Amino acid sequence: MERAVEEPRIVARYRLRCDADAVEDRAQKIAVEQSVEMPLAGVRDREIMENIVGKVLGVEPRGERLFEVTIGLSPRTVGADAGQLLNMLLGNTSMHEDVSLEDAEIPEPLLDVFGGPNQGIEGLRALAGVKRRALTCSALKPQGSSPERLAALAHEFALGGADFIKDDHGLADQEYSRFVERAPACARAMREAEKITGRLTHYVPSLWGSFEEIDARIRLARDEGLRAVMLAPALVGVSNLVALKRKHADLAFFAHPSFTGGARIAQPLYNKLYRLFGADAVIFATFGGRFGYSRETCRGIADGARKPLGRLRRAMPVPAGGLTLARVNETLDFYGEETMLLIGGDLLLFDRGELARQTAAFVRGVESYGEASA
Amino acid sequence: MERAVEEPRIVARYRLRCDADAVEDRAQKIAVEQSVEMPLAGVRDREIMENIVGKVLGVEPRGERLFEVTIGLSPRTVGADAGQLLNMLLGNTSMHEDVSLEDAEIPEPLLDVFGGPNQGIEGLRALAGVKRRALTCSALKPQGSSPERLAALAHEFALGGADFIKDDHGLADQEYSRFVERAPACARAMREAEKITGRLTHYVPSLWGSFEEIDARIRLARDEGLRAVMLAPALVGVSNLVALKRKHADLAFFAHPSFTGGARIAQPLYNKLYRLFGADAVIFATFGGRFGYSRETCRGIADGARKPLGRLRRAMPVPAGGLTLARVNETLDFYGEETMLLIGGDLLLFDRGELARQTAAFVRGVESYGEASA
Repeated sequence: MERAVEEPRIVARYRLRCDADAVEDRAQKIAVEQSVEMPLAGVRDREIMENIVGKVLGVEPRGERLFEVTIGLSPRTVGADAGQLLNMLLGNTSMHEDVSLEDAEIPEPLLDVFGGPNQGIEGLRALAGVKRRALTCSALKPQGSSPERLAALAHEFALGGADFIKDDHGLADQEYSRFVERAPACARAMREAEKITGRLTHYVPSLWGSFEEIDARIRLARDEGLRAVMLAPALVGVSNLVALKRKHADLAFFAHPSFTGGARIAQPLYNKLYRLFGADAVIFATFGGRFGYSRETCRGIADGARKPLGRLRRAMPVPAGGLTLARVNETLDFYGEETMLLIGGDLLLFDRGELARQTAAFVRGVESYGEASA
Repeated sequence: MERAVEEPRIVARYRLRCDADAVEDRAQKIAVEQSVEMPLAGVRDREIMENIVGKVLGVEPRGERLFEVTIGLSPRTVGADAGQLLNMLLGNTSMHEDVSLEDAEIPEPLLDVFGGPNQGIEGLRALAGVKRRALTCSALKPQGSSPERLAALAHEFALGGADFIKDDHGLADQEYSRFVERAPACARAMREAEKITGRLTHYVPSLWGSFEEIDARIRLARDEGLRAVMLAPALVGVSNLVALKRKHADLAFFAHPSFTGGARIAQPLYNKLYRLFGADAVIFATFGGRFGYSRETCRGIADGARKPLGRLRRAMPVPAGGLTLARVNETLDFYGEETMLLIGGDLLLFDRGELARQTAAFVRGVESYGEASA
């Protein structure tokens, strides 16, 4: 394991809340916990001390009892596994209530190991047949509805011209809505709407289960001609996302933020990692909705999805979580048009007879924003 | 979907930090978010309103601006998937910084769906050939070591008579320590030590990767005669744990707490859910070590692992995270003997020549505690 030149490190930035006289010691302890996880007095191999043990690269005050601690971690400890990358970034340290992971710069060779989105923004645009305006998405709810009822809803949304229609992320494989019934029913509703509108809306089913169950459901979705699927990587497992996007490289993967919490790993970083692991679209809770994210956080999420990151394709940011028809312009002003707007519950407040018309108004709002700013 | 009698609910307890005049509204919003996730004005199906929408069962003050909110969730929304259970318990609500999930009572039929440990405490005792004393475990470190070096360490630990030897949870499939080399090398070290001691120590390899990679590694471990494996369900995916423990029902699964954080889901509940999903042993950070868990939290973790829970087998609590030789008696006083003590770094402070002797001292300490209290 001898190496003459030191390789680039993963640069992880932690926010640490502690007394000033303790911060150097705490920073060093995080560096050890996130690498060799044992007293350094017991590490006798010089190569490990130099190239594997985490290194404190900086400690900066950020407020009263608040510090930014920058630590260099060896990419060699990650190997090629996504779960192990999260493990080395935050695994045991997640159990320290006064530490959170704010950002991580991943060296280019490790970015290439995971490879990012297969489709990215361009692929999603091509799927929707839309060149420059923002994309539109709605959601099938509520939980508890039968496949027939959800398919009927999907049909209305499609008549209204939405680009994508996703399952509520609570739709899994329940007695009242078996995946094997729901996915074909909704796919059929899309094809029937296409006969009327001349344009295919993409239904995006929600996937839950073990890898094998999800893989079987993707195969079913594929048989129904579906081109995009959704899963929650924090619960399904990020390594499964990587394996699935490799196995189904022609599909688009939507990442749902369920269970990403907010205390230990900053949302912009979480979403950036989802992009790294293969998410083509990253759904997140936008400012001013049901969740308390700031504009700054939302800017960070959009940047993580779209800004250059090695050779990775860009992922589509999908602001959601309480977005309304009235907020289309404000939202596009903020995110720009390389965005997919997801309006769920606000559309469902209308009677079924009104759904297609309201969806069309949503789509028109997005289209005309594009025209006005052209 | 008509039902005359209301079925038992999942009773979820959340801790909510908010103003007193907002708490009823916030509680209701959590109940909606964790079930139908849309404005109730848009839910037109009476059956869904009555049987699927979450119900606020109680709101109790717990301090200044602090409340316990109890919500009944429909088990029907879970189906039979472990990830979906976490999704319904905390998915989107995890993104509210002022809410945490403290406990959840799962109705017996849903407990039976997941089924819990295959081996449990009795199975682990049988594996170790130990009837009543506490079990012992040590850990292979540091990260960066070659398979040969780790196998040599494992050999010393085995000569000292440890019942189990686990990989450091940072050991995955790295260039310097390929799983296909490490697992056979350590398994061989166990067999060689057995020839000397007459007693087999169980090596417990750390598993990372997608389901398919982990499954392949388990098959390799099985070929080497190994009987126990370790994974971190929060990163590997809880649904994968369920699928793996079903597929490999004769093996024992150790659950590592990496990435379980601490802010949004109470550790005792997290560990209880790991038991539900099939962990035979739950590793956790014990009080007084490197992590800040209180005795009360640790008591809760041990209770969640061992107390009656429907028809599920009991899981073995494995206190760790900075345990030392000097703390054996104190730790056994606290947890009792249905426990596995895991000492990692403290043993590794000794020179290689001393390791077997120190491990033997650790094992003797545990044995003689049993004799003294017999």
